[in-house]
Amino acid sequence: MALSAGFFYFLSFIAAAMAFLFALYLYLWVKKQKVENRKIIEVSKLISEGASAFISREYRILAVFAAVFALIILLFLPTPIWKGGIWDNISMTIAYIAGTVLSAIAGKIGIMVATLSNGRTAESAEHGLKDAFLIGFRGGAVMGLLVVACSLIGVALVLMLFGDTSIILGFSFGASSLALFAKAGGGIFTKTADVAADLTGKVELGIPEDDPRNPAVIADNVGDNVGDVAGMGADLFDSNVAASASALVIASSLSGASDAINMVFCYMILGLISSMIGIANARVGRNGSPTRALNASTYTTTAVFLVLTAIATALIDGFSWRVWGASSVGLLVGVIIGITTDYFTDDTKPIVQRVAKASASGPAFTVLSGVSYGFISALPAMVGIAVSALAAYRICDPMGEGYALFGISMAAVGMLSIVGMIISNDAYGPIVDNARGLAEMGGLGEETIRIADELDSAGNTVKAVTKGFSIGAAGLTVISLLGAFMSEANAVLSERGMDLITGFDIMNPSVFFGILVGASLPALFSAMLILGVDRNAERMVAEIHRQFNTIPGLKEGTASPDYSLCIDIAAAGALRELIPAGLAAIIVTCIVGFIGGASAIGGFLLGNIVSGLLLALFMSNSGGLWDNSKKYVEAGNEGGKGSNAHKAAVIGDTVGDPFKDTAGPSINTQITVVSLVSSLLVSVFVSFSIF
Amino acid sequence: MALSAGFFYFLSFIAAAMAFLFALYLYLWVKKQKVENRKIIEVSKLISEGASAFISREYRILAVFAAVFALIILLFLPTPIWKGGIWDNISMTIAYIAGTVLSAIAGKIGIMVATLSNGRTAESAEHGLKDAFLIGFRGGAVMGLLVVACSLIGVALVLMLFGDTSIILGFSFGASSLALFAKAGGGIFTKTADVAADLTGKVELGIPEDDPRNPAVIADNVGDNVGDVAGMGADLFDSNVAASASALVIASSLSGASDAINMVFCYMILGLISSMIGIANARVGRNGSPTRALNASTYTTTAVFLVLTAIATALIDGFSWRVWGASSVGLLVGVIIGITTDYFTDDTKPIVQRVAKASASGPAFTVLSGVSYGFISALPAMVGIAVSALAAYRICDPMGEGYALFGISMAAVGMLSIVGMIISNDAYGPIVDNARGLAEMGGLGEETIRIADELDSAGNTVKAVTKGFSIGAAGLTVISLLGAFMSEANAVLSERGMDLITGFDIMNPSVFFGILVGASLPALFSAMLILGVDRNAERMVAEIHRQFNTIPGLKEGTASPDYSLCIDIAAAGALRELIPAGLAAIIVTCIVGFIGGASAIGGFLLGNIVSGLLLALFMSNSGGLWDNSKKYVEAGNEGGKGSNAHKAAVIGDTVGDPFKDTAGPSINTQITVVSLVSSLLVSVFVSFSIF
Repeated sequence: MALSAGFFYFLSFIAAAMAFLFALYLYLWVKKQKVENRKIIEVSKLISEGASAFISREYRILAVFAAVFALIILLFLPTPIWKGGIWDNISMTIAYIAGTVLSAIAGKIGIMVATLSNGRTAESAEHGLKDAFLIGFRGGAVMGLLVVACSLIGVALVLMLFGDTSIILGFSFGASSLALFAKAGGGIFTKTADVAADLTGKVELGIPEDDPRNPAVIADNVGDNVGDVAGMGADLFDSNVAASASALVIASSLSGASDAINMVFCYMILGLISSMIGIANARVGRNGSPTRALNASTYTTTAVFLVLTAIATALIDGFSWRVWGASSVGLLVGVIIGITTDYFTDDTKPIVQRVAKASASGPAFTVLSGVSYGFISALPAMVGIAVSALAAYRICDPMGEGYALFGISMAAVGMLSIVGMIISNDAYGPIVDNARGLAEMGGLGEETIRIADELDSAGNTVKAVTKGFSIGAAGLTVISLLGAFMSEANAVLSERGMDLITGFDIMNPSVFFGILVGASLPALFSAMLILGVDRNAERMVAEIHRQFNTIPGLKEGTASPDYSLCIDIAAAGALRELIPAGLAAIIVTCIVGFIGGASAIGGFLLGNIVSGLLLALFMSNSGGLWDNSKKYVEAGNEGGKGSNAHKAAVIGDTVGDPFKDTAGPSINTQITVVSLVSSLLVSVFVSFSIF
Repeated sequence: MALSAGFFYFLSFIAAAMAFLFALYLYLWVKKQKVENRKIIEVSKLISEGASAFISREYRILAVFAAVFALIILLFLPTPIWKGGIWDNISMTIAYIAGTVLSAIAGKIGIMVATLSNGRTAESAEHGLKDAFLIGFRGGAVMGLLVVACSLIGVALVLMLFGDTSIILGFSFGASSLALFAKAGGGIFTKTADVAADLTGKVELGIPEDDPRNPAVIADNVGDNVGDVAGMGADLFDSNVAASASALVIASSLSGASDAINMVFCYMILGLISSMIGIANARVGRNGSPTRALNASTYTTTAVFLVLTAIATALIDGFSWRVWGASSVGLLVGVIIGITTDYFTDDTKPIVQRVAKASASGPAFTVLSGVSYGFISALPAMVGIAVSALAAYRICDPMGEGYALFGISMAAVGMLSIVGMIISNDAYGPIVDNARGLAEMGGLGEETIRIADELDSAGNTVKAVTKGFSIGAAGLTVISLLGAFMSEANAVLSERGMDLITGFDIMNPSVFFGILVGASLPALFSAMLILGVDRNAERMVAEIHRQFNTIPGLKEGTASPDYSLCIDIAAAGALRELIPAGLAAIIVTCIVGFIGGASAIGGFLLGNIVSGLLLALFMSNSGGLWDNSKKYVEAGNEGGKGSNAHKAAVIGDTVGDPFKDTAGPSINTQITVVSLVSSLLVSVFVSFSIF
C-alpha cells in the first residue's frame, strides 16, 4: 500500500478529532455524576477558582514573555529579517505563538475538568471504589487526550501550512516556553503551599492534613492541580512536540525523506489511538486494586501500539522494520525505566522500607539513606537510555546516512507514543488527592476516607513511574535534538561556505568547556527553584501565623480563614521565583554560544542532558521514596504515627517535596528550552562567537 | 642555558633529599616539645595506637589486593606476557609496587607525626596561640613534604630506570590503589566513629563532644587522623603522581619530547621548593589569626612558584613561555576555586549564615538550603576548570601537534605545584581537632579550650578550601589522563594496523553510551560509601549501647569504656564496606570497555569526570557549609546552643559528615582509579570489545 503525505495529514486531523470527541464524552460523563454535599461543593469551587486565578495570572505574564520572544523570532529567526526571507520569520513567529496557545488551551481545559472531578470522586467514594476510580481517571484522561491531540494537530498544521520542518522548531519552542512556566511555576506554587501547610498545620498546631482551619489548605489543593495537572501536561506536551519535531527535522534531511516523515506521523497517530483504547479499557473491580488497574491500562496501550505499528509497517510501502525496531526499543526501555523507578519508590518493596527503618535512628539517616538510594536509582534509567540510544542507532544505521540518528529520534517517539495514557495516569493523582481532602473536609466518614486514601496511594505510586518515564523520554528526545541542532548548524555553515560540523569531539576544548558549563546548569537551575520554594513558603508561613493571631475563633474552628490570601502568595511568589531561574538558563546558553560557538553549544547540550538526567532522576526518585516511606511509617510500621521514626520520615518528606515536584521534573523543561534556544540561535552563534 | 635530562633527575633527588631533611628537622622540633599532662599522654597514646592498628590492618588487606593486581599486571600489561616484551611487564609490576609502597610509607610516617603533635599542641595551647599553631602546622607539614618528595623521587626513579613514560602509569596506578583504600576506607572509618559518637553522646546522653565516657571518642579522634592525614595525603599523592604521569606520557609523544619532559621535572622540583619556603614561613603572631596565617603561606607558595618558574623559563634553553602560561593559569584557577569554596563555607560570609537562618524553620530547611547552595557552589569551580582547560589549550596549541593537550596537563601540574603546602594545611586540621579533644579530656581549662577551638575552626575553614583545590586539580588531571588514554589506545591501534582514534565524538553512540554510564558511576560509588557509613555507624551505636548497659559506673564516669572495641568496629567495617564500592567502579569500567571498546571508554571517562566533579564539589561544599553553620549557631546565633535552630543544624552537620569526609573527596580517587584502569587495559578492550 503506497500512501501520500496528504493522507497522513488527513488522518492526523481525523485522529485528533476523534480524541476531542472522546474527551468531550468523558467530560460530559464526569459532569453528570452527582455532587450534593454542600461543604464539598463550596470547597471544590474554591479550589477551582484558585486554580483558574493562578492559571490566568500565569498566562498573563507568559503572554508578555511570549510577545517579547515572538518579536525576537520575527526579527532574527531563522535569519535576521534584513537579510531577506521575511516569510520564514513570519511563519516561525506564527508557529511559536501556536505552540504556546495550543499548550495553554490544553492546560486550561485539563485544570477545569480536574477540578470538576475531585468533588465528584469524593462523593462517589461513599459508594465504593469502582465509580470513584472511574471518575478520577476519566477526569484526568481528558487532559491526556487533549495534550496528544493538540500536539498532533499542531505539528501537522504547521508542516502542512509552511512545508518546512525547521519551522516546527518554532512551534516546539512555543510549547517549551509554556512548559517552563507551567511546570516550574506550578511546581513552586504547589510545594510552597504544601510545605507551608504542613509546617504550620501538622508540625506547629498538630491538626490533620487538609484541616479546613488551615488557611493554606485550599492553596495546597490548588497546587496539586496547577503543578501536576497543568504543569505535567505542559511538560509532556513539550516533550512530545520536541520528540516529533526533532524526528521530523532529521527525517527531512534523509534520502527517503517523504517515507520517513510519513512514518513519524503514522506513529504519532497510532500512539494516540492506542492511548484511546487504553483509556477506554481502564476500570477497577469492586475490590480490585487501583494501582493494578492503572498499570494494566499502561501495558494495554503499550501492547496495542506495538501491534498497530507492526501492522502499519507490514502494510505500507516504504515503512521499515528497522524503524519499527528502534521505536519499539524506545517504548520497551521506557516501560523498564518505569518498573525500576517503581522498585525504588514502592512501599511494598525493600528500599522504601529500609529508608523507613533508617528513620528510626533520626532524620539525618532518613536524608542520607534517601539521597543514597536516589543516587543509585539513577543508574538503571541512565543505562536504559544509553542502551536504547545505542540499539536504535545500530538498528537504523544500515539504512543509510543520517538514519542512525533518525532511529534515535524514533526511539524517543516510541517512548512517548503512550504519552496520552501517561498523562491520564498522572492527572488522576491530584484529582484523587484533592478528593481525599474533600472527603475529610466534607465529613464523609472513615470508610470513605479510607477508600479515598487507597485511590490516592495508587496515584502516588503511579506518579513516580510516570515521572521516571517522562524523564527518560526527555533524555532520548534531547539526544535527537542534539542531532537536530547539528543539522541546523550545518545548514547555516554550508550557506556561508564554512566547514561543516561532523561531530562534537570531547577532546576539542571548546566542546569540553561547553560540557562542564552545561553540566553545572541543571544544578544551578534546581537550586534556584528549591530556594524559591523555601523563600515563598516562608512568606506563606508568616501569613498563616498572622491569620491565626488576628482572626478570632480560627483555632477553635468557629471562624473561617482567608484562603485567597495564601493562594495569592503562592501564585505571586511562584512566578517571581521562576523568572530568574528561567532567564539564567537562557542567558548561560547565550554566553556559552557567544564564547565557543557551535562546538561549545554541542558540548553544552550534552553536559546539560547528562547531568540533567542524573539530577532529575535522583531528585524525583528520592522525593518519591521519602514520601512513600513516610506513608509506610504512618501505616503503623517502625512505631507508626507520632514515633521518632515518623518525625524523621516527615522531615524526609518535606525535603523530598521540592525535589520531586519542583526541581526534579522541571529539569526536563530546562533541558528542552536550552536545546531549542540553541537550535534557534545557531546562526547567531556561528556569526558572533569569540573562539 | 642548555640542560640535560640527567641534570633534572639529579636535581629531583637533591630536592627530595632536602625535603626529607627538612621533614626530619620538623619532626625533631615537634618531638622535643613538652607534653606532661598524664591524661593527655595516655589518651594520645590510645589515638596513636588505634591509628597504627587501622593503618596496619588496611595495609595488610591492601597487600593482598596489590599482590593480585601486580600478578595481573605481570601477566597482561602493557601486553600479554605470551606475546613477548616480558621485561616491560616486569618493569610495570615493579613500578606498580613502588607506587603503593612509597605512598604507604608517606602515609604511615605522616600519621605517626600527626599523632605525636596533637598532645603537644594541646599542652602548648596553655601558653597561647603562637607555639600551639606552630606545632600543629609543622606536624602536618611533615606529611606534606613527604608526599611531594616521595612522588617526585618515585616518578624520577621509574623514568630513569625504565626510560619509558608509559611505565609511570603503573606507578600511578599503584598510588591510586593505595589512595582508594586510604581515602575511601579512612573516610568510612572517620565518619562511622564521628556519627556514632555524636548520635549516642550529644543526642542521646547529652554529654559533650570528646567526653571520655563515650566509648567511641577515641575512635573519633583516630578517624580524624586516618581520614584526613593518611587519606587526604594518599589522595593528593595520587593526584600529584597522576598529573605528572599524564604530563610525561603526553610529553614523550611530542616533537620536542626531551625539553617537554625536562619542563615537567623542573616544575615539580620548583613546586617542592616553593612549598618548603611557604612552610618555613608559616607563623602566627601572639594574637594573630591562624586562618590568615595558613592562607598567607599558601599565597606565598603560589607567588614563589610563579616567580621561580618564570626565572627557569627565562634562563633555560628550550623552555617555553607558553607552557609557563598554561601552568600559571592552572595554579591561579586553583586559587580562585579555593576562594569561591571559601565563600560558600566560611561562617563570616552570607551563605553559611543563611543556612543557619533557614535552620530556625526546621531541619528540612537546613537540608534544602544546604543542598541548594551546594549545587550552586559547583558552578564557579566547574567553569574555572573549563576555562583553564580552554585557556591552556589555546595558549599551547600554536607550539605544534600534541602541545595543546600538553598545555592542559601542565595546567594540572601547575595547579598541583603547591600540593606540599595544601597537604600541610590539610593535615593541620585533624591535629588541632585532636588537640581540642585532648585539651578537654586533659582538663586544661576554659581558656586553653578556647584557643584550641580557634585553631580548630581555622582548620575547618582551610580544609574546605583545600578540598575544593584538590577536586579542581583532579578534574584537570583527568582531562590530561583522557589524552594519555588516547595516546595509549593509538599506540595499540597503530601496532595492529587499525584506524587511529582522532577524538571522541559525542554523536557516536558508543561514546554516548559510555558518557551516560560514566556519569552514573560517581553517584553509585558515593551512595555505596554513604550507605556503608550508615551501616557501620549502626554497628558502633549498638556496641556503645552495649557498653553503657553492661559496664557499671560508665555513665557516672567512675569506670572506663573499652575504646578499642569501637576502633575495631570502625576499622573492620570501613574495609568491608569499601571493597564492594571499589570493585563496582573497576567492574563497570571493564563492562563498558568490553561492550563499546576504546570509544565507549573515552566517553565513559568524560561522563565520569563531569558528574564526578559536580557531585564531589556539591558534597564537599554542602558538607562544609553545614558543619560551619552548626558552629555559627553554636557561637550564639539564631538562638545558640540548644535552640531549635541548633538541633536542625546538628542534623544538617550529620548529613554533611559523610558527604564531605567520605563520599565527596573519595570521588577523586574513584575517577583516577577508573582512568588508570582504562589506560592500562586499553589493549585488552581494543581486542575483545563487542561493538
